[in-house]
Amino acid sequence: MRINGNYLDLKESYLFSLIAKKVDEYKQNNPEKEIIRLGIGDVTLPLVSAVTKAMKKAVIEMENAETFMGYGEEQGYGFLRRAVCDYYEKKGVLLDETEVFISDGAKSDLGNILDIFGINNTVLIPDPVYPVYVDTNIMAGREITFINGNEDNSFLPLPDETTAGDIVYICSPNNPTGAVYTKEQLKIWVDWALERDAVILFDSAYEAFIRDENLPTSIYQIPGTKKCAIEFCSLSKTAGFTGTRCGYTVVPNELVREDIPLNRLWLRRQTTKFNGVPYIVQRGAKAVFTEQGLSQIRENIDYYLNNARIITETLLELGIWFTGGNNSPYIWLKCPDKMTSWEFFDLILDKYNIVGTPGVGFGKQGEGFFRLTAFANTDNVKIAMDRLKE
Amino acid sequence: MRINGNYLDLKESYLFSLIAKKVDEYKQNNPEKEIIRLGIGDVTLPLVSAVTKAMKKAVIEMENAETFMGYGEEQGYGFLRRAVCDYYEKKGVLLDETEVFISDGAKSDLGNILDIFGINNTVLIPDPVYPVYVDTNIMAGREITFINGNEDNSFLPLPDETTAGDIVYICSPNNPTGAVYTKEQLKIWVDWALERDAVILFDSAYEAFIRDENLPTSIYQIPGTKKCAIEFCSLSKTAGFTGTRCGYTVVPNELVREDIPLNRLWLRRQTTKFNGVPYIVQRGAKAVFTEQGLSQIRENIDYYLNNARIITETLLELGIWFTGGNNSPYIWLKCPDKMTSWEFFDLILDKYNIVGTPGVGFGKQGEGFFRLTAFANTDNVKIAMDRLKE
Repeated sequence: MRINGNYLDLKESYLFSLIAKKVDEYKQNNPEKEIIRLGIGDVTLPLVSAVTKAMKKAVIEMENAETFMGYGEEQGYGFLRRAVCDYYEKKGVLLDETEVFISDGAKSDLGNILDIFGINNTVLIPDPVYPVYVDTNIMAGREITFINGNEDNSFLPLPDETTAGDIVYICSPNNPTGAVYTKEQLKIWVDWALERDAVILFDSAYEAFIRDENLPTSIYQIPGTKKCAIEFCSLSKTAGFTGTRCGYTVVPNELVREDIPLNRLWLRRQTTKFNGVPYIVQRGAKAVFTEQGLSQIRENIDYYLNNARIITETLLELGIWFTGGNNSPYIWLKCPDKMTSWEFFDLILDKYNIVGTPGVGFGKQGEGFFRLTAFANTDNVKIAMDRLKE
Repeated sequence: MRINGNYLDLKESYLFSLIAKKVDEYKQNNPEKEIIRLGIGDVTLPLVSAVTKAMKKAVIEMENAETFMGYGEEQGYGFLRRAVCDYYEKKGVLLDETEVFISDGAKSDLGNILDIFGINNTVLIPDPVYPVYVDTNIMAGREITFINGNEDNSFLPLPDETTAGDIVYICSPNNPTGAVYTKEQLKIWVDWALERDAVILFDSAYEAFIRDENLPTSIYQIPGTKKCAIEFCSLSKTAGFTGTRCGYTVVPNELVREDIPLNRLWLRRQTTKFNGVPYIVQRGAKAVFTEQGLSQIRENIDYYLNNARIITETLLELGIWFTGGNNSPYIWLKCPDKMTSWEFFDLILDKYNIVGTPGVGFGKQGEGFFRLTAFANTDNVKIAMDRLKE
């Protein structure tokens, strides 16, 4: 038996283990210091009551023979797919229920979607980037090219005529940079894709953080996109589902390549290699999209956005260049005094007892940059920013 | 963008849709007849109280900031991996926690495991078979060979020196045949695999139905197996988790190919393409392995096994050849009078209003055979068997 040799091409990621090691060392040497963590990409507020109420009810259904639910459709219950369609309708995007696939999160589907694409496609990935896009393609042995984000393009790279690629990943609001494409910018990507029959994998995991009504919360708000894009979303950040696991993937029926609707391929993939999301979780997810649920999660997101505002106001005051923080839980700052990402990490850990994430961990273009997140307690964010201002 | 052309080699499965169509037609023409379904592979009893109690507690934890759980380790919480190790210890199998991966079910992992194997491996699959084994390999473009189950080998095919294959699927107790390999028989497979560095993918989803203490409930009960087998199990049938989604996959640290531990590859696959099972579900799964949980699920399985006994006693009385039904929820019978699978399907639907599954739907070797399942109400099973006896 031979292993998949592509796995040997993967780089080990020491980013978060190295951060943990450095923080542990600092704590051991400075047990009296209180460290504030602004490096974590995980939510901190609990599930809202609309969700837990629905899940409690679902657990009770599961313990009675009359209401017990066994296997559901792999692509998710109709009640939840319908709720997702209604959510999109409010964005001005009309979807059919068959175009929505309930998933256990955007990460799984962003990786698994590659199953339906031929190996010989070239993949175009923005740098800096969520590492999953890169690693899943290395595992499959695909050729990867990068398009560079940088200070000049405000970490929102755009293609030109020379840009090549069959599959492209776009994440907006972006992880790690927090930058958000405008409709006009996304249209450039869509036109580029339509022109060369490329497919856009659009990661909209942070769409719920968008408050500016002019910014797109779905790529399908750009006309023509149903012919060239698959959209991945998740309730992880929208509704604090990081430990509850539910998302959805939209594969429009109009998206056809080589005369085959990709929707049909993805349905086949999911019915063969997946068995659906727990009934209890789907009931909780459905509650997110009720009036009460939407109002409750909005409150939570406002809490995080307020943290982000406190951070960005401090950076403005200090004259530090950054992207994100508006319409996003991530703030991507340029390390002052030409420091490298790790030099800045060490500096603010040692001097201000603040933990963030070195930008270089997200790609070459991240060198010299640094990610802070708004997923924290507001009092701690204030203390951290006061320390920075000093 | 080019699609994965291997998908075009997949056969459409009309098995269950054709069954549904035939049943619907019969019902329309005979609205007064009460149809008894013995064709479904889904559980019918609700979740046991130990499980729902734990899940209710977990939901409450999720609504409080102090006890809220965000991202967990992709391979599952330590508390559940420990519980699985303890469960195996009772079978005489010692596992390390790092060898256990919590999954959202055996189906997902049986498909996804293929990621870590090279494309050029030859896959050996028993016929008849759970169609997922075949389809997932067709999707990847792998060469498949079959080893035939039949009346002569009681649908427990064994390899000989000429049997080739790098990866082999074994499911015991088997779906669809209900047949169970003895330790001596499994040892033949293990020796065969060790001799040629093949890897056995052992699907033990029905192990909890084994009541005969001489039969193996884990392939690791055969010495040496940790060097050649990955075991997949699920709580779907063990504890009625078909709609709750939790299983586990064991990749022993001793399983090494080309100097690479497969455990390390699978960990990398899961941390890259999966984000773990919901905390609430893992808490429910943990409760399955408590003393109370194990006693409650045993009662449920006894209920199904009693249904199976009623069926097998009827078949014995009628002189119909079958496998399974002892130590398994499936009964695989030879259609009388040389009928084809679909002829027998039509006969018992029309004459006795019983629905089962035509064996040919599980592979060529299934032609002339028929699957009944014990996942039904006992009163209905009795009525169905009385009708057959008439």
